[in-house]
Parts: sequence; structure tokens; C-alpha cells
Amino acid sequence: MTFNESLRASIRDRGSNVCVGLDPDLEALPAEFEVDPDEVLRFVTGVVEATSEFAAAYKPNSAFYEIMGPHGMEVLQAVIASVPEEIPVILDVKRGDIGNTAERYAEAAYETYGAGAATVSPYMGRDSLEPFLRRPERGVFVLCRTSNAGSSELQELPVDGTPLFLRVAELANQWNTNDNVGLVAGATFPPDIERIRAVCPSLPILVPGVGAQQGDLVGAVGAAAGEGREGAFLISSSRSIMHASRGPDHQHAAADAARRLRDQIQAAL
Amino acid sequence: MTFNESLRASIRDRGSNVCVGLDPDLEALPAEFEVDPDEVLRFVTGVVEATSEFAAAYKPNSAFYEIMGPHGMEVLQAVIASVPEEIPVILDVKRGDIGNTAERYAEAAYETYGAGAATVSPYMGRDSLEPFLRRPERGVFVLCRTSNAGSSELQELPVDGTPLFLRVAELANQWNTNDNVGLVAGATFPPDIERIRAVCPSLPILVPGVGAQQGDLVGAVGAAAGEGREGAFLISSSRSIMHASRGPDHQHAAADAARRLRDQIQAAL
Repeated sequence: MTFNESLRASIRDRGSNVCVGLDPDLEALPAEFEVDPDEVLRFVTGVVEATSEFAAAYKPNSAFYEIMGPHGMEVLQAVIASVPEEIPVILDVKRGDIGNTAERYAEAAYETYGAGAATVSPYMGRDSLEPFLRRPERGVFVLCRTSNAGSSELQELPVDGTPLFLRVAELANQWNTNDNVGLVAGATFPPDIERIRAVCPSLPILVPGVGAQQGDLVGAVGAAAGEGREGAFLISSSRSIMHASRGPDHQHAAADAARRLRDQIQAAL
Repeated sequence: MTFNESLRASIRDRGSNVCVGLDPDLEALPAEFEVDPDEVLRFVTGVVEATSEFAAAYKPNSAFYEIMGPHGMEVLQAVIASVPEEIPVILDVKRGDIGNTAERYAEAAYETYGAGAATVSPYMGRDSLEPFLRRPERGVFVLCRTSNAGSSELQELPVDGTPLFLRVAELANQWNTNDNVGLVAGATFPPDIERIRAVCPSLPILVPGVGAQQGDLVGAVGAAAGEGREGAFLISSSRSIMHASRGPDHQHAAADAARRLRDQIQAAL
């Protein structure tokens, strides 16, 4: 099975387009947890356990583990291993490097850390992504139109009249020879998701930026699903789910937030 | 002292523009070392010890440590700590992410791992780099024109007639409000380094791609130094120095390779 097939199966079988971001904020842990890597592991695996019924995918961002040093990377490994096998894990690392180095980043993401997919930056071109693209069963989400305010600085630069992010979308289509490429496009720019969907009717779109970043959920869902409502997509939310409560009810609060997001997406479809 | 001041001081005081890449290839270790993180640490610190007389900077690439798992990140910390204090360490991570996540990447690079500078990707725009740019004493090398063959795919796209990489060079000038920004431009494209130097007369240029990648050393040195020969630059070489020999003479071979590169650069200036 290719990665995109297994992602589509996960979305369909679980009746959900929710991607739960696993980005533990050390300053916002529920009161019962100490600021300590082992406690963070207990917290994050608790979030996984509480939300797995509603999640089509999980997405840990490497930065939140790297900041804890080497011990944090053990936590990342254990977090990924704790996700039920049928739910894809997208490791958000935004990597990109030359040949023999990219080879190591891909092996680190897929083998050392056990992720099913990784996010990558397109700036260095196709050969820098080749080790990621080569494995049909592993996914590659290419940064296209990111959710931050400053993303326009490069991504909207006009290349022969077309914004750079749309050129990246076109390239991603060409790079998708193994049915394992997807795109990252923020909920903060729904009209741009629509343009990306028009260029890439068959690529999954990973949409961050709802919740704390206040993206437009309904607009993003409509745009990512596309006109025939057949486009595969994930709406990713982290803080609003995993940090929904600091009280003893934090697992219930996370489950509720994930269920609510699932239902809001379904209602918007 | 700003990062760019301390880098210029290092180049001047040491009479060298050599940046020694610290990228241990587990399949090419000298025969006396086992494939084991502690052995890799012993090997890499041996390279640092042997080459420190000839190095203006060191540049470990994170991928080569990430692939060894959490233990590899301990090796990375120890490698960075082993570099003499007066020599800047550029952690080659090519990071870039949204606000609160970029904050963590910057803290991980500068505090957790103790690097003096980091490489970053410009694709997400200035706000994604803000946590890196904010600290005058820490350096930020922005990917501009990378040394790989496929770099042209995005970096040469014409934006109103100007290739994207030159627009990035212009942006890097604007981002350099703290005298801590530099650029990455490969020795494989000396005419492009010349164009970058013309746009950014005062930014340090980090030039990978000599040695194994067969870039043009003389052309790259001339272009990076600029017409008045006053531009700060580093020529980075990894495999050709640290893996110069697999025999018991590996430290001598590394020192010789670093000295030779230093002298070749001086001759080309």
C-alpha cells in the first residue's frame, strides 16, 4: 500500500480528517505533570490514548522534543511508538538537504524515529527530497503555503505571474511518482488552498493553522476537499486539543476537543 | 560582539577561511573505530583536535548525529562542546518553522546544543526566522544558492526577471539588523556567488561544495571575497578533511587536508 492509500484508508475508516498535533508546551502542561521528559512522555501518550478514536493521523513536531535535548528524542521515539499501528504518524521536521545528508534525514525520520511520513522544505529542489520520495509506503508532505503571516514574503513572489507556492504545487505533482506526496497549506489562506487543490486534485493536503492560529476552518475544509468533495485532507490542531485543559480532566478535554473538531469538519463537508 | 564580528575576528586571527565540516560517515570511519556513538565521538573530537590550528569555524550537520538516535544527540552536544571557545560552531540544521516552534528550534540550536550559529531555510519568510535573528551574538546562515545539482529547480525561478536566490539575498540584507546574518552559496556555482556578493557586500558567505562535490575552489574564493577582497567567507569541506584516511594516520591526514585547503584559499586570494 502506498502512503497516500493508507492515509485515505485511515480518513475513510475512522470517519475523521483530524490530525492531532503532538507538540507538548512545557509551560502549559496540566498541573499533575512535572517539567521532565518522562512526565512529558506520560502526558503525550495520555493524549494519544484519549484521542485515538477521533484521529485520522498524528503529527509530532520535532522542535518540541529537540528542545529537551537527547532525552527528548527518546520521548519522541516512544511517542511515535505509542500510536496505534493503523493511524499514520507524520513527523513534522521540515527537513531538506543535499543527497547523502538527505539520505540520513530520511532514514532518521522513517527508521530511527519510526514515522510514517515527514514534512520537508522544497527550497533545495527535487534531488534534496529524493531519499524521502523513493519509498512508496512513506509519506512526504511538501511545504507549499504555510500558515504564518510572513509566509507571503517568499511564497507569493510572482514567477511569470504565478505565485511561487503554486509553482511548488506543480512541482509536487511531478515529484509524486510513488503516490506518497502531499502538501502543507495553512487554514489562514483558504483561497490559496483552493488554487492548490485545482493544480493538485489528487494530492493529500495537510492543513495547519486552525485553533490557536485562528484559521478559517469552514473555508479551509471546503477548499481542501475540492469541488467534488473527493480531495483527501487533514486538519491539524495541536494546542487546542492537547492543551485544552490543565486540570485533572485534561484527557477528557483533549478527547472532547478532537471529537468536536471531527464533527465541525464533517458538518463543513 | 555580534556574530559577524566574531566570525571576522576568527578568520583574521587564524589566517584561515576553512570551515571544517564534522559529518561522520559511519561507513567510512577509520579502521580503529567501531560503529558506535561513543567511538564516533572519539573520532570526531580527534578531528577537531587535529585541525583546530587551521579552522576558522566548524560545521557539524545534524543529520549525521540524528541518524544515531538519542545517543547521537549526546554525541552532537559533546562534539560542539569540544571545539575551542574562540572558534565559532555553525550547526547545520536548515531549520525553519512558525513562531512558537521556531522559538524552540532556535533555543535547541543555541542553548541545548550550544552552537554559535545555525543554518536556516528562507521558504517560510522572516517571521519564521525571527527567534534566530533576534540574538546579535548568534549567527544565522540563510540558504541562498545551494550546492546540489537540483538547487536550480526553485532557486533559479525568475521573479520579475531576477532569480529567486537573488531575491533571498536581498531579503537577507533586510533581515540583517543585528549584524548576524550570513548566506549559504555553493562552490558549484561561482558566477552566482559573484552576483550574491554584489547584492550583499557585507554578509559572510558560507561556501560548501568543494572537495567531494567538486566545486570550483579558485572561482568560489574570488567570487566570495569580492572585488575589494574584503568579503568575509568560509570554504566548508567535510569528507575530504575528516575522512582523508582510514588508516592509523587519520588525524595527520585530516590536519594535512585542512592545512592544504587553508593554503589553497590563501593562494587564490
